[in-house]
Amino acid sequence: MSVDAVRDSFIATRRQFLSICEPLELEDYGLQAAEFASPPKWHLAHTTWFFETFLLKDFLPDYEPLEPMYEVLFNSYYNGIGAQHPRGQRGLLSRPLLSEVLKYREHVNKAMLLLLATASSREEYQTILARTVLGIEHERQHQELFFTDLKYSLGVNPLYPVYRREASAAGNVPGPLQWSGFEGGLIEIGYAGEEFCFDNEQPRHRVYIEPFEIANRLVTNAEYQGFIDDGGYVRPELWLADGWASVQREQWCAPLHWVEREGESLEFTLGGLKSRCGGDPVTHVSGYEADAYARWAGVRLPTEAQWEHMAAQFESRPADKTDANTPSLLCHPEPAQGDDLGQLYGACWQWTQSAYSPYPGFSASAGAIGEYNGKFMSNQWVLRGGSCVTPPSQARTTYRNFFYPQDRWQFSGIRLAR
Amino acid sequence: MSVDAVRDSFIATRRQFLSICEPLELEDYGLQAAEFASPPKWHLAHTTWFFETFLLKDFLPDYEPLEPMYEVLFNSYYNGIGAQHPRGQRGLLSRPLLSEVLKYREHVNKAMLLLLATASSREEYQTILARTVLGIEHERQHQELFFTDLKYSLGVNPLYPVYRREASAAGNVPGPLQWSGFEGGLIEIGYAGEEFCFDNEQPRHRVYIEPFEIANRLVTNAEYQGFIDDGGYVRPELWLADGWASVQREQWCAPLHWVEREGESLEFTLGGLKSRCGGDPVTHVSGYEADAYARWAGVRLPTEAQWEHMAAQFESRPADKTDANTPSLLCHPEPAQGDDLGQLYGACWQWTQSAYSPYPGFSASAGAIGEYNGKFMSNQWVLRGGSCVTPPSQARTTYRNFFYPQDRWQFSGIRLAR
Amino acid sequence: MSVDAVRDSFIATRRQFLSICEPLELEDYGLQAAEFASPPKWHLAHTTWFFETFLLKDFLPDYEPLEPMYEVLFNSYYNGIGAQHPRGQRGLLSRPLLSEVLKYREHVNKAMLLLLATASSREEYQTILARTVLGIEHERQHQELFFTDLKYSLGVNPLYPVYRREASAAGNVPGPLQWSGFEGGLIEIGYAGEEFCFDNEQPRHRVYIEPFEIANRLVTNAEYQGFIDDGGYVRPELWLADGWASVQREQWCAPLHWVEREGESLEFTLGGLKSRCGGDPVTHVSGYEADAYARWAGVRLPTEAQWEHMAAQFESRPADKTDANTPSLLCHPEPAQGDDLGQLYGACWQWTQSAYSPYPGFSASAGAIGEYNGKFMSNQWVLRGGSCVTPPSQARTTYRNFFYPQDRWQFSGIRLAR
Amino acid sequence: MSVDAVRDSFIATRRQFLSICEPLELEDYGLQAAEFASPPKWHLAHTTWFFETFLLKDFLPDYEPLEPMYEVLFNSYYNGIGAQHPRGQRGLLSRPLLSEVLKYREHVNKAMLLLLATASSREEYQTILARTVLGIEHERQHQELFFTDLKYSLGVNPLYPVYRREASAAGNVPGPLQWSGFEGGLIEIGYAGEEFCFDNEQPRHRVYIEPFEIANRLVTNAEYQGFIDDGGYVRPELWLADGWASVQREQWCAPLHWVEREGESLEFTLGGLKSRCGGDPVTHVSGYEADAYARWAGVRLPTEAQWEHMAAQFESRPADKTDANTPSLLCHPEPAQGDDLGQLYGACWQWTQSAYSPYPGFSASAGAIGEYNGKFMSNQWVLRGGSCVTPPSQARTTYRNFFYPQDRWQFSGIRLAR
Repeated sequence: MSVDAVRDSFIATRRQFLSICEPLELEDYGLQAAEFASPPKWHLAHTTWFFETFLLKDFLPDYEPLEPMYEVLFNSYYNGIGAQHPRGQRGLLSRPLLSEVLKYREHVNKAMLLLLATASSREEYQTILARTVLGIEHERQHQELFFTDLKYSLGVNPLYPVYRREASAAGNVPGPLQWSGFEGGLIEIGYAGEEFCFDNEQPRHRVYIEPFEIANRLVTNAEYQGFIDDGGYVRPELWLADGWASVQREQWCAPLHWVEREGESLEFTLGGLKSRCGGDPVTHVSGYEADAYARWAGVRLPTEAQWEHMAAQFESRPADKTDANTPSLLCHPEPAQGDDLGQLYGACWQWTQSAYSPYPGFSASAGAIGEYNGKFMSNQWVLRGGSCVTPPSQARTTYRNFFYPQDRWQFSGIRLAR
Repeated sequence: MSVDAVRDSFIATRRQFLSICEPLELEDYGLQAAEFASPPKWHLAHTTWFFETFLLKDFLPDYEPLEPMYEVLFNSYYNGIGAQHPRGQRGLLSRPLLSEVLKYREHVNKAMLLLLATASSREEYQTILARTVLGIEHERQHQELFFTDLKYSLGVNPLYPVYRREASAAGNVPGPLQWSGFEGGLIEIGYAGEEFCFDNEQPRHRVYIEPFEIANRLVTNAEYQGFIDDGGYVRPELWLADGWASVQREQWCAPLHWVEREGESLEFTLGGLKSRCGGDPVTHVSGYEADAYARWAGVRLPTEAQWEHMAAQFESRPADKTDANTPSLLCHPEPAQGDDLGQLYGACWQWTQSAYSPYPGFSASAGAIGEYNGKFMSNQWVLRGGSCVTPPSQARTTYRNFFYPQDRWQFSGIRLAR
Repeated sequence: MSVDAVRDSFIATRRQFLSICEPLELEDYGLQAAEFASPPKWHLAHTTWFFETFLLKDFLPDYEPLEPMYEVLFNSYYNGIGAQHPRGQRGLLSRPLLSEVLKYREHVNKAMLLLLATASSREEYQTILARTVLGIEHERQHQELFFTDLKYSLGVNPLYPVYRREASAAGNVPGPLQWSGFEGGLIEIGYAGEEFCFDNEQPRHRVYIEPFEIANRLVTNAEYQGFIDDGGYVRPELWLADGWASVQREQWCAPLHWVEREGESLEFTLGGLKSRCGGDPVTHVSGYEADAYARWAGVRLPTEAQWEHMAAQFESRPADKTDANTPSLLCHPEPAQGDDLGQLYGACWQWTQSAYSPYPGFSASAGAIGEYNGKFMSNQWVLRGGSCVTPPSQARTTYRNFFYPQDRWQFSGIRLAR
Repeated sequence: MSVDAVRDSFIATRRQFLSICEPLELEDYGLQAAEFASPPKWHLAHTTWFFETFLLKDFLPDYEPLEPMYEVLFNSYYNGIGAQHPRGQRGLLSRPLLSEVLKYREHVNKAMLLLLATASSREEYQTILARTVLGIEHERQHQELFFTDLKYSLGVNPLYPVYRREASAAGNVPGPLQWSGFEGGLIEIGYAGEEFCFDNEQPRHRVYIEPFEIANRLVTNAEYQGFIDDGGYVRPELWLADGWASVQREQWCAPLHWVEREGESLEFTLGGLKSRCGGDPVTHVSGYEADAYARWAGVRLPTEAQWEHMAAQFESRPADKTDANTPSLLCHPEPAQGDDLGQLYGACWQWTQSAYSPYPGFSASAGAIGEYNGKFMSNQWVLRGGSCVTPPSQARTTYRNFFYPQDRWQFSGIRLAR
């Protein structure tokens, strides 16, 4: 990308975060209902900290931080940078005020534009561009987390606050699930293009896969209800042992955000409490629930290699290509349209059965920035695709998202394979 | 009290709460850094809930609650009323907004004034007056908790926010501790006056006490530092067994809010981080620390009967009477003045060695309101006097405050006896 | 006591412990089902350690410990002596073997007899006698704990093992509860005799008490069942706040060791699983349950001063004096006999409403031995009397037993007052 | 295998368990120092339960269980069979006594021999043989756990008890680590032979692997000490994020069972506390420690496919074949001999970087027996090879052992790859 393109992208992404914050009340900015669900204000500050730490402090001569304590307060997990404010206490930072965080953003924006304007004469020119792009992608990831963290934190309030009231979707009900077959063989996965990708998508490498079939759409709420009605949450034989332990410890009996009230089937959404539509894809399920559902249905989850192989071929089908570029104003996954293979990127992340591991030959970057992805390569599962709150620009065949199999607060759903 | 006096007191007390909130930023209103430290907004709403629940719903015909869910959200611990929002999740209620809580206060204020204006013709007239007074005293107690909870919640922020910046006190250093002797014998304690008291101060009853001496002032920071320097926190023989367990579990090595930084002895106050004055009374110590200090000093803590006996005689010494009526603008305990017996009410609550138990013949009121005090009569210790943030109108010789011996977030200090 | 009497008592007490161990299987000696329930083998060793530590190491020239590590392994809680093996891991000491612990007992017995035989010529003669008596009383306390800890640890085994199978009691049902009245006034409590007492029973001092009535017998299983049937465990208004928290956290719905199976009302005893007799005194209830029962019954628990005052007068009634000296072979409390005031010492410990505090003027002994009682004077409640497994020689009007109000594994019951 | 061979193997394996128990004291049989470390007596009973549950109850007409409660007490984790005694309370079962468990073993042995003697005429003949073999292999796995659980449980005793005192090994120090290269390509892994294997080793399938090099021997204590001396346990950049969290939570600073005392480098072994030999392979390290060591050394752990590919080729080298068949009397891993590729099976299990997942096409057996392996396929890592306490008959190229990456109580070591 040219420096001009990078600058424009930087400006647009930084603005975008303010734009999605607009519906919030000032009192919402500090909410943190669980250690994993950071407050909006913290996301605004941390994404700024990223540019300050990895660009301005390293490359902009005479850069002056606005407030030295922010180095600690807004460091998420980079041990290479230094101490971190305890993750579970991000919601206790009533100060700095939002107005101060916005000033911090302005301060860093200005300095970043100066850095970019003067970068071309520098020896580290390519590094500066690459890191800026990484910072932009990083901020986009946090814009997605903004939605899921906010949904989680608002969702514990019995008043079920509304983030943004939107017209409801049509609520159509998709047809029966169908299967697309793919040949196996020695294929390649991983990113090999010229544009941005995260380090964990590389290197592109060969993998041998068996032939498989994959579902044309995601599992729906109605289908998932069938699993529940058939004793899904009380039959240990359907579950991995650790999953069953989670069911019992957490008293799971339905996906997160499902609400039963006076005989009505409801669900909490960013538009408030709503009727649950049977045709919508089920979402906010853990990896364990996805796996148990698949076992109940007599099939399984795809591996990440299978998913990517499928998606790579889907990419070449022009009619469906738009799938990746329709952001949802609803902040809610929409039902499948038609019977073609679809719902790859704009509805729910799709759990795979693959543990999150390094690709053969993977090596993390040197220094603190190498902590971005690599150190999380244990105990998590890969999700593929994208969701209704993923910035469309991040939808990428090779993108590897990862969460613990017990996590449920993302827009995570189920695509079956066999 | 006449109904007019009650009404005036009601209006003044309700206004007073808004007045002490003025220095807050909107983002501070939701802060809750521990289960025991409720957010300012919650205190504003809960004190309102108290009038609504125990006066308006019971006695005002056709009273309409503003929002039915508030009955649950702002119920503190009254099982007789019904379910309660989990105590540790009060800080997660970004909604209702502060503006909505203020409307709730207005709504209830208006209805209360109507109730009081029309009460005289009612059969329950005396009950209405008595409960209104109880509601006023209840709100004053929460105004004290407002300060201590806020101090706790701001104190976990490494930026050490300022609630209100005030001129510092003179910082004088009191003279050596002196002892006042009292004869023992068969005395009476408990409230027997005509004005308001809490149910736990009654009935007045006879108690036999031995002769004793009591310190003329509270233990100072400098004296407490001597205890620390002498190994106070590493010598188990100075501690009760449960206290020593707390020291080890919580890693206590100084009072709460003490800060050592680059060789400086500091302390967090509601005016921000400040130098620690050796002459100030030590505060934010647990009952265990008070007890260990006393054992180290070769003396002990007073019993509550001894304290009350001493205070009752002090009351009759006209010169010191003002002690009770000097509210501190500093929100910080000031050093002792002169060598006379003093610091009874305006500096720090004083731990006694008495477990909080019912007085002989005590019986709680019928119904949910009986849960106010009685059900806490186990495992807590009595504190006597009052602190720099206690509303002066609550300073009362017979007042029994109570906290767990491990609690440190109140303005609690040490008065020795022997 | 003369040195001969002390020696005889020492020998008898040491033998007694082996005698009560006889019904055990070797595999039972290491059982520890909770941190508070020490294994039989540990009790055998710890009581030995007490003599070694406080007598032999201090006073017997050239005494050689059998194994230096025992100083740590069998130290219960004496910080003044040094480090302690973690309390919860006493059950993990398969070594030393029982045979080695018995050798340790022999080793210490022999040295103790030598010490006593040669003590009369020593300057510390009186101290040696007094400490030996303390060690004997200490061992008797652990003989009681042997039974209650063993009952607890066997009780978690679904096979409900039998410690000793004895003929069942007659199972008679006592008549209606009756009240004995006592005048109040300025009385004295605390030990003032010539024989042994623990330091916490002193000094004898004056206390003012109000007139009161006390129940002639303990609450029965049948009466307690009435409390349960009336919703005792689901009505928060009957409970202290901390007690209610225990009910919910621990899911209490009956006394410890009650078992309902296929419609039968059973109870686990040291004789195995048996039918529950309605006329037996209810036992294994916490202080919270005792307090809630009393509130449900419209009365209260006695204070310890009331209990002692009552017991002191009872002592002078010759007919009932035997109450104190009938040890139960059943290891189970027997029903009340007749309508006179009874069941003071041989059935169940009786919860009082008094927090365990120092008597006015109490001071603990110097050195580690001062940790015996004094450091536990917080958060616990006093129980008075004695139980079916208390050595009769320890039944004493002034004896103060103490446990946390949530503790249930002792033979603790309920005597009402009003 | 013929029925005669199965019967002989059954008899030998059942006897073998009694033989390894011989050095125990009766008081050791109930030891359980952690939830994961079952007592010897429980292992003896559970392996018996396995035959009773999956063979006798299903196939032997008129089989009478010795004691119905054993079905619950000795069920490990088979939800399909029914309830299970809580895992953490296996050490609290002083009853049944060891003598009763031995009778249970006899009872089941006799019935099993009857079943085998009469099986040939049965329709389920093949199933009976296959399940018996599974039960034998299951018992062998528990014989390995017997050693590691026992070592863990004895290891918390400060007396460091000796299980079996054996002559020490020579303590030679191996030469510098060397690398063996292997070509990659499309290979096959998984069991395809005629003899026994576990279900998780199947189906044999194709995998594409890159070329790699693998270390000729395991990492030694001396090499691991170098990692520690270089700050291995205080440098977060060397660790996976979850691993670093374990280091901090568990305060790891050396492998399990390492002891530093008065300047001496010791280690607890089943022969008691001994000097630590620099040349021995490091053992009792978690997967996180193995991974951190590899990162520190600039290399990585092998994948399980690489390990198996290497081992399959090693198998064909006749000279080293004996590696698999030398059981260690020491219960301790011996140093490497010579510079050839070795230490595959008889020293330590070797952590791989592979998450434990189903092979493509894997399906668990129907019914409760399907819970054997399949339900554990999440969050664990594969270990390959075998250890000094693995029955040599279980050493198999395709064997997949699995533990959580935080587990350290197995004889688990480190083989590097690059």
